[in-house]
Amino acid sequence: MDALHQHNTAILLLALGALLAAAKILGELARRLRQPSVLGELLAGVLLGPTVLGTLAPEANAFLFPQEGPMASALDAIAGVAVTLFLMVAGLEVDLSNVWRKGWVGLKVGVASIAIPFGAGFAIAWGLPQIFDLPSDVSPLLFALFLAIAMSISALPVIVKTLLDLNLYRSDFGVVVVSAAIFNDLVGWIIFAVVLGLIDNVAGMGNGITLTVSLALGFILFVFTIGRKLIHRLLPYVQAYTWWPGGEIGFVIILSLLGAAFTEWIGIHAIFGAFFIGMAVGDSPHLRRRSRYILDQFVSSVFSPLFFASIGLKVNFITRFDGVLVLIVFVAACVCKLVGGAAGAKWGRMGSRESLAVGFAMNSRGAMEIILGLLALERGIISQELFVALVITAILTSMMGGPMMQLILQPARKARLEDAFRFGLFLPELRADSIKGVIEEMTAVVGQVLGGRLEPYVVSRVSCAPEDVACAAIVNDVLLLAAGVDHISQPYVVTGLSTQGVGLSFMDTQRAHVVFLILSPKNDPAIRGDMVAELSLLYRDQAMIDQTLQARSFTEFLALIRTSTVYLQKE
Amino acid sequence: MDALHQHNTAILLLALGALLAAAKILGELARRLRQPSVLGELLAGVLLGPTVLGTLAPEANAFLFPQEGPMASALDAIAGVAVTLFLMVAGLEVDLSNVWRKGWVGLKVGVASIAIPFGAGFAIAWGLPQIFDLPSDVSPLLFALFLAIAMSISALPVIVKTLLDLNLYRSDFGVVVVSAAIFNDLVGWIIFAVVLGLIDNVAGMGNGITLTVSLALGFILFVFTIGRKLIHRLLPYVQAYTWWPGGEIGFVIILSLLGAAFTEWIGIHAIFGAFFIGMAVGDSPHLRRRSRYILDQFVSSVFSPLFFASIGLKVNFITRFDGVLVLIVFVAACVCKLVGGAAGAKWGRMGSRESLAVGFAMNSRGAMEIILGLLALERGIISQELFVALVITAILTSMMGGPMMQLILQPARKARLEDAFRFGLFLPELRADSIKGVIEEMTAVVGQVLGGRLEPYVVSRVSCAPEDVACAAIVNDVLLLAAGVDHISQPYVVTGLSTQGVGLSFMDTQRAHVVFLILSPKNDPAIRGDMVAELSLLYRDQAMIDQTLQARSFTEFLALIRTSTVYLQKE
Repeated sequence: MDALHQHNTAILLLALGALLAAAKILGELARRLRQPSVLGELLAGVLLGPTVLGTLAPEANAFLFPQEGPMASALDAIAGVAVTLFLMVAGLEVDLSNVWRKGWVGLKVGVASIAIPFGAGFAIAWGLPQIFDLPSDVSPLLFALFLAIAMSISALPVIVKTLLDLNLYRSDFGVVVVSAAIFNDLVGWIIFAVVLGLIDNVAGMGNGITLTVSLALGFILFVFTIGRKLIHRLLPYVQAYTWWPGGEIGFVIILSLLGAAFTEWIGIHAIFGAFFIGMAVGDSPHLRRRSRYILDQFVSSVFSPLFFASIGLKVNFITRFDGVLVLIVFVAACVCKLVGGAAGAKWGRMGSRESLAVGFAMNSRGAMEIILGLLALERGIISQELFVALVITAILTSMMGGPMMQLILQPARKARLEDAFRFGLFLPELRADSIKGVIEEMTAVVGQVLGGRLEPYVVSRVSCAPEDVACAAIVNDVLLLAAGVDHISQPYVVTGLSTQGVGLSFMDTQRAHVVFLILSPKNDPAIRGDMVAELSLLYRDQAMIDQTLQARSFTEFLALIRTSTVYLQKE
Repeated sequence: MDALHQHNTAILLLALGALLAAAKILGELARRLRQPSVLGELLAGVLLGPTVLGTLAPEANAFLFPQEGPMASALDAIAGVAVTLFLMVAGLEVDLSNVWRKGWVGLKVGVASIAIPFGAGFAIAWGLPQIFDLPSDVSPLLFALFLAIAMSISALPVIVKTLLDLNLYRSDFGVVVVSAAIFNDLVGWIIFAVVLGLIDNVAGMGNGITLTVSLALGFILFVFTIGRKLIHRLLPYVQAYTWWPGGEIGFVIILSLLGAAFTEWIGIHAIFGAFFIGMAVGDSPHLRRRSRYILDQFVSSVFSPLFFASIGLKVNFITRFDGVLVLIVFVAACVCKLVGGAAGAKWGRMGSRESLAVGFAMNSRGAMEIILGLLALERGIISQELFVALVITAILTSMMGGPMMQLILQPARKARLEDAFRFGLFLPELRADSIKGVIEEMTAVVGQVLGGRLEPYVVSRVSCAPEDVACAAIVNDVLLLAAGVDHISQPYVVTGLSTQGVGLSFMDTQRAHVVFLILSPKNDPAIRGDMVAELSLLYRDQAMIDQTLQARSFTEFLALIRTSTVYLQKE
């Protein structure tokens, strides 16, 4: 540890801790605002990097994130490993068998949403290179190829997340979009690998164009034929004869690192090896769900935030912000991709509204566009201004996707149980001990908490008419009450705990210690049914009841609900 | 990514992949030989480092693992983060509430097994410093303090694993040993932190002895009082308001990185911060089992092997091997710790045999001794020869612990279901379709496979007498047969799959497609009961039956058994 002694180690750990903390906090804020978390993670880097901290307190920035020396190498290496593992997990999540689920429609969308933006991007860059502030030593042909790729890429993870949010993932629409996005990912990244090979060779760094491109295509071919079969064959040996799941996790990571080293060595980039190996591994039905889950959770919660935050450290997003360029790139990207996606959907005989929605879905570029821009920036084929424009385009298109699909398709959002709980709707100690008293006590609270949104007298009227309150069940210690209410647009659940217990009648010996009152929109009985079913499922478990009774605050109660295994497995 | 461009990145990824692959393969081999996996992981570094690869192919070694430059910094940084996370997980696993489970006995063992080796180690180093080939600029007092610590440390993780292996973990003996080891860990590392603070100050690197020591003690005090309470308070907020479990995992890692940065900065070492923070987090009942599991699995299966392998890269274990020194250190370490542990146990009124076994248990030094040696090596207070001696002592004492306890206490090892399956005992297609035919077919195979160990006629006699074969159950598609057999010392399970199905009689419409024949030692009916219970539990699940029927080889079948969730949760 010569190069990195003591003080450096302390600073490195502090830098990693601070970067991860900022990325997690801002990522969570973005998520709560229903935005992609990569937005918050990038912002963390922008805050701690040259843009903000570097301007306000340059010494602090240089102390934490020096541009040169052993610490810079160390941070770079960690960011490099992080992006490698992130792409491996992204590859794992690509389920190739999905491409064929809607037959030709998905494929048509996939082809059109690559071909049209690719052609348009190439034409713009070739015809109007002066817009892009091209470094003088960059070949216009290569730059045009790069911009063509940049216009045509989609981000599968963002698309999947948006579809899940909108409850469209399992619809016909969702299946078409996902299969198109998988096709887009696969073909787009293969073309990009080839283009990167060309770029390096033209820059005089590579091993000859033909060699690089054939090695790249040979690697991809190998991974998807022999490699895929070998992995499928080897996984049971790993599971049967090594410590599980540690052995399986190690196996996947080793393969990704070696694949990444190979693609980096042949002159494309490490991420391709990791991504294609991830796809090959994820394709094996032998890969166990638990290993996949651990890889996914750890990488997404530690390595991806670190990587995306580290991008913000590289560029000053204010001085390198060029409004006109941002506008051009953003508009061009949206138009190409909307036309491409919609044309593909029309070609697959989808309706007009749906075709437009397909266009907006495919337009989400998220993390993939950012990584693509970063690679081009590192090779010196784009300016920092264009990189900033690509990052902003990536984020804006990802943010637009959800709201636009919502607007066009107006799908029924699925109410989530966890969203139905509210701070004031948790009563740690009920005073009433009869069912009628409890209903009065609970609805009074609802009136206070939702006062603005909900007229209290409506609720109290509802509560006073016992025929409107259905007693769903009293099982073990739990009493479930449900009522349809006017004037609310989403369900609410009031939760009460009772030490003395609540009885159905004076005579009843069975008393409930946990009481839920579910209030759902009167015109949507399905929601009420969903809520009753989910709560019943969660509270089948005696441990869950015991833990609920120990909850001392709303936060502890909500933490319990959100982390309970049953609830999670359903997601 | 200036400092680490392309070719360097490829080499770094290759180096990490190769190191992790070697560490996992050798670690698994060690585990199969019932040795601590850290032994194999260290050997991986020895193979790829100066000892073997550096001697046979110095260019390859310098290419993969250069001693200087940006790649060396990068590898060092990754190893540094790895050991930080490893110590965090080690801290998580320390369950402080255990210390009090056996009242004073564990505490007495803990005190004696630190105090006696500490005194002896100090006396040896102070009285005979010439043995240890002391660097001339090292203060004899500090060296004596270091050796005192080195003699008195135990390794909780190794001890827990050995006790689990011997089925002693939940026995009174196990509880005493674990609580003593926890006390040892806690107190030993606090003293070591203080000693390291002293060392740095004497070397002129620190902030003044009083300041360093008070900061170190202040940090520990803070972590275990206010810090512990704060963490306990904050965890429900993290669970309730961030994406779960990613938010919780990130929270724990951020705290560990920041704690590590602080302890490194005050002049002790990063690992202390991570270890104590890990203990404080692990102490909160709010920490969810799933987050703990993901942290544990990912860190143990990726970061720990990388770290331990990287240790092998640092020293040439052949040229720096000094037989006499190894012998002295090993004997001194064993004697001190055996006397200390046994004396403590006697003081706690344990029997003589048990007291001796306690001594051997506490003597396991594992990873902790190696880390301690590494820190001293990096500070230049011990020679490479003494480091090699400490590593060898750590490994030998860990390897001895299990066999010696086995010899002294002779506990009944619990038969594990997965060990009862054998390559030849899996019949993917049964020919017979009656229960009698199946028993004949299966026992014939047993005769072939275990021929050497088991006289075939014994088995065939058993099989011919149907009254000795109990039909445990035929539930769904599964038929469980069990028989007590002479002349075997462990249970075996023969597994057969049948497409046509096996009926209990000609008339029977219910046919079994999965058949298990459990052969267990006749004189141990408890084992048979355990096996029947475990198989029944596993095969309650229809998915498990379906997957079993799809298994095409013994390996696929064993992989299924070992990775099935129910089986795992029991561990």
